[in-house]
Amino acid sequence: MTNQLTAYQNFMDLAIEEFKLPTSPAQLYEPINYFLSIGGKRMRPILTLMGSELFSGDYRRAKHASLAVELFHNFTLIHDDIMDAAPLRRGKETVHSKWGENIAILSGDTLLIEAYKQLNHYPSELLGKLISVFNQTAIEVCEGQQMDMDYETATNVTIDQYVQMIAFKTAVLLGCSLKMGAIIGGASESDAQDLYDFGINLGLAFQIQDDILDVYADINKFGKQVGGDILANKKTYLLLRALEDADAFQKEKFQQLFSESDQQLKIEGVKMLYSALDIENKAIEKMNYYHDLAIEKLNHISLPTEKKQPLYNLADFLLRREH
Amino acid sequence: MTNQLTAYQNFMDLAIEEFKLPTSPAQLYEPINYFLSIGGKRMRPILTLMGSELFSGDYRRAKHASLAVELFHNFTLIHDDIMDAAPLRRGKETVHSKWGENIAILSGDTLLIEAYKQLNHYPSELLGKLISVFNQTAIEVCEGQQMDMDYETATNVTIDQYVQMIAFKTAVLLGCSLKMGAIIGGASESDAQDLYDFGINLGLAFQIQDDILDVYADINKFGKQVGGDILANKKTYLLLRALEDADAFQKEKFQQLFSESDQQLKIEGVKMLYSALDIENKAIEKMNYYHDLAIEKLNHISLPTEKKQPLYNLADFLLRREH
Repeated sequence: MTNQLTAYQNFMDLAIEEFKLPTSPAQLYEPINYFLSIGGKRMRPILTLMGSELFSGDYRRAKHASLAVELFHNFTLIHDDIMDAAPLRRGKETVHSKWGENIAILSGDTLLIEAYKQLNHYPSELLGKLISVFNQTAIEVCEGQQMDMDYETATNVTIDQYVQMIAFKTAVLLGCSLKMGAIIGGASESDAQDLYDFGINLGLAFQIQDDILDVYADINKFGKQVGGDILANKKTYLLLRALEDADAFQKEKFQQLFSESDQQLKIEGVKMLYSALDIENKAIEKMNYYHDLAIEKLNHISLPTEKKQPLYNLADFLLRREH
Repeated sequence: MTNQLTAYQNFMDLAIEEFKLPTSPAQLYEPINYFLSIGGKRMRPILTLMGSELFSGDYRRAKHASLAVELFHNFTLIHDDIMDAAPLRRGKETVHSKWGENIAILSGDTLLIEAYKQLNHYPSELLGKLISVFNQTAIEVCEGQQMDMDYETATNVTIDQYVQMIAFKTAVLLGCSLKMGAIIGGASESDAQDLYDFGINLGLAFQIQDDILDVYADINKFGKQVGGDILANKKTYLLLRALEDADAFQKEKFQQLFSESDQQLKIEGVKMLYSALDIENKAIEKMNYYHDLAIEKLNHISLPTEKKQPLYNLADFLLRREH
């Protein structure tokens, strides 16, 4: 599994290196080159390669579409970082911290258009289909980002709303990445749709796992601070589920903890409430629910299991990080 | 002329009214609806309709492409207004003043994607061509905006750089609007390209006329403050040409006037220098140069003159406002 992933990653790193932008205006293109070079796991473009490989045995023909999803993803990161006033991304300065907001807005816009330019490499019989799924996804990602901003200050976010938000903000792009690969690979509409649904459900499971790991990960293996979501009062699946299941006394306790300034006390307090409400298990159950749905969709694709094995492996790999 | 323009304008107003966005998330779509409703002359989409009418006798089939250019144009305005920190647009509050920068960034992004959604209404034999010219134009518009920002603080902008900037920032979208109409109308590549070049040169002439009107317009007919560019030390064709032609003494005088705080003295001082350097005539000459190029391109299109008459009329109409 990891070998194959590494091969895809290398292919994408090279594709991004070969992706040449003009040098002028420098203030527009330098930030883009900088941001693309600080990396990331290239998960989305790899999904596009895998989607194409699955149906055609050839991942290379998905190069431009995989670049498109990676450029799109980086566009969203640059703009999201402005909106979140985030100073760092992947441990490096964000574009707006380094060059200012105006340049970050404009270089994000440019990346979005560059993504469409990549799609225009495909012949007309594929182009309309690719643009359709890409457009729909792009709009949903914007809607998801708006929901995320809305929910930050909202007081009564439901679990359904939360799932809808993470579906739009992150999971649909995984589905789209896979589906574009499938379209390029010549999949039937039904198979392409199943692969899309596999991606969505995998994305939901992955996001809930992320919520779980923030609280219960082994700090040495997780690689980021445990309890960060708790300290930020972030509305995660765990918190929303806990608030839904809590009795009046527990709800009151949560409210107190939201304004607790001692970090240790705050994390321990929330974890005790989670424990009393069995939240870790409930979250694992929800994660497994989406994981099972994803596998069901993958099972349904009309190809021999051995062909689909890399995607089964991927699901295992993504959903068994350090839990 | 004006009757036909009004008919196109009404068609576009209706098309924009019929263009339905979701109602939720409200914070994403309300700003878009607001901004589209505060209007503008719809000049770009009308060009698309005229391009299609010219070659096919049917402007209605260009509806989605004309919506695309109008949505794109509004995307650029919303983001430019953030970058310029502009409180007003068409006499109304800008999106970022009314809803904040984050929402203005995101609703601009959404409009750009909605523009691509409109293009995807066309059949595959047109789609690739439409997306090609649209992508190239969109990138150039971003580059033009970056040049504009760069030149604000640059001390030695040349006339060539200025022309390149206004070509990218405004003229290419006129060319693109016309060319997309031509493509939809079934024009040959050569005719479509001539129409594009007509649009570019018309746009350049129009922009230089705008620079002239800022200084020499009849205030009652121009509808905005005369001398605004002078007060802002804005690098217009007139100023750049004047600085290029000025002798050492006049250059020194310009430098003094840049920091003159008395508005009346500043405007009168710059106008006296312009007069000594014959700048009004030189600017009119440059405007006419692009106007003539535009007409030459229109002449070259392989259609009877009577068919092209509305575009000759349009050029007359746009370039003889109040001068």
